[in-house]
Amino acid sequence: MGYWIGIDLGGTNMVCGLLDESMNIVAKLKKPTLANQGADDIIQRIAENAELLLEQNLVNKSDLLGIGMGSPGFINPDLGIGVFSANLGWRDYPVAAQLQALTGIPVSIDNDVRMYVYGEAIQGAGRDHDHVLGITLGTGIAAAVVNNGKLYYGGGYMAGEIGHIPMDGVTAKCGCGLVGCLETVASATGIARQAREALQAGRSSILGEWFTGDNIQRLIATDVSKAYDAGDALAQEIMDYTGRALGKGLAAAVTLFSPDCIVIGGGAALAGERLFAPMREEIQKSVIPIYWDRLTIVRGELIDDGGVIGSATFAKSRA
Amino acid sequence: MGYWIGIDLGGTNMVCGLLDESMNIVAKLKKPTLANQGADDIIQRIAENAELLLEQNLVNKSDLLGIGMGSPGFINPDLGIGVFSANLGWRDYPVAAQLQALTGIPVSIDNDVRMYVYGEAIQGAGRDHDHVLGITLGTGIAAAVVNNGKLYYGGGYMAGEIGHIPMDGVTAKCGCGLVGCLETVASATGIARQAREALQAGRSSILGEWFTGDNIQRLIATDVSKAYDAGDALAQEIMDYTGRALGKGLAAAVTLFSPDCIVIGGGAALAGERLFAPMREEIQKSVIPIYWDRLTIVRGELIDDGGVIGSATFAKSRA
Repeated sequence: MGYWIGIDLGGTNMVCGLLDESMNIVAKLKKPTLANQGADDIIQRIAENAELLLEQNLVNKSDLLGIGMGSPGFINPDLGIGVFSANLGWRDYPVAAQLQALTGIPVSIDNDVRMYVYGEAIQGAGRDHDHVLGITLGTGIAAAVVNNGKLYYGGGYMAGEIGHIPMDGVTAKCGCGLVGCLETVASATGIARQAREALQAGRSSILGEWFTGDNIQRLIATDVSKAYDAGDALAQEIMDYTGRALGKGLAAAVTLFSPDCIVIGGGAALAGERLFAPMREEIQKSVIPIYWDRLTIVRGELIDDGGVIGSATFAKSRA
Repeated sequence: MGYWIGIDLGGTNMVCGLLDESMNIVAKLKKPTLANQGADDIIQRIAENAELLLEQNLVNKSDLLGIGMGSPGFINPDLGIGVFSANLGWRDYPVAAQLQALTGIPVSIDNDVRMYVYGEAIQGAGRDHDHVLGITLGTGIAAAVVNNGKLYYGGGYMAGEIGHIPMDGVTAKCGCGLVGCLETVASATGIARQAREALQAGRSSILGEWFTGDNIQRLIATDVSKAYDAGDALAQEIMDYTGRALGKGLAAAVTLFSPDCIVIGGGAALAGERLFAPMREEIQKSVIPIYWDRLTIVRGELIDDGGVIGSATFAKSRA
């Protein structure tokens, strides 16, 4: 019996999963990343957690076939290098080689969004489709494409930055330095920002009763969903606008990539139909019917395990 | 010495080229397509032209390694089928099998835009780059992507329809049925349409002196270029708007595909810097600098031979 380890490395926590050959999760460990202790230390701790996972589950190291890891930032999966990660402090850091040296096990690494989408495309909500476009809708929004079982990378491994498609009529400044990027609207932070700005501009809303004075800074996307459910007009307007902006960005992606299936994951996907109903309407209105007719749009189904399953599946595909 | 034949099949003419193993064109034949005589007849004539090309150049059929063909419409290159082509009257027509039966030579077929872009990517202006986005700017606008030497197809072989990206603020109806598609602006017909509509709305321009009364229907994109060169303000405004629209569409494509190189071909590319200067400005303004910094934007260099060279190169890649 062979096993795989999949690691979902975040700026705050790392989740290490032990998976069998069918990519079922046998056990998981969640530990703090302690990113401020530096790159070498993070890798040391990942190696220790991998060993711990094997011990706790009575798996011999000789049965471990490979380790896969998804990490935030720019990753070169062919060289196994963390090119740049602000959260983890990586600058051309040889992640795979370091972890492989410590564990003696082959290591594959890629960007966390790609690993999540890869997991959904191969093992999750997109598994019945050959051409999957997956997005993670959270603090920001990012995408990856799995085409005939393979990730599409493009130059510099930078394809899929759907969050930075420029949107006409959007004037918010993006963290990337540009103005009007899709993710300034279509993201958890974008939804919260729209609500705060509307309240500050004097719009009346139940949100103004929930968040008075400086408390407004504590307003998050989930609150907009709650206000929406309470029938609040502003919240409904924001969700409608956000869903349509998302739909416009996805329409461009559909027309360029021609996916069979769009999988939507990430925390902000919890807004559900409040966002997806206007999004679908906008996509349908904006793409040639031959695209729409073959398109399935689904919620991700691996949820929190997507990164772990995707990383392990990726490692297996590269073995 | 082995040879290849590349065929650029259009609704009006077909160009058949004989190429050596380094993909140099040894000889070319141009013949009318006579599309109205039906699919079987077209294939029969292609076969005859291929034989003629061999005879005229004293090449033995046994030295012919394969035939490649680019054709308008929806093509399934894996099955060699013309799925739909309005101009050629194809409906699920087994193009490759028919031509192969007549010639006894292996036949590969794909869409004409993909064949042109493939030629530029492998043998032409994009040959030094691993990730090439090519567009043909003519009556319409279409794109294809060659990633690490391979065409990106997507579901239904329909990826790359950049002409049908929806553009905010554009209200023209597109041939596809949608409103506001990029190609209603960024194409030869789009440029001419904008000029005609401006004149009909009473805008003053040297174009109004050149085309009086019903003659306005004869105004084409080249005339707008001429007026531009004569310092006409309307023509300059149209070229600027068109270049910027093209830049916006390409910015979305760059952000999603991350190409190293954009190759621009097609007849309307003759507008040159009149169009490309505002286009480049808009792309630079609209993409994250990490994309812009690695991006080369060039005119196609195979021009009229792109389809022939691309088709033959494609046939060779599939042999």
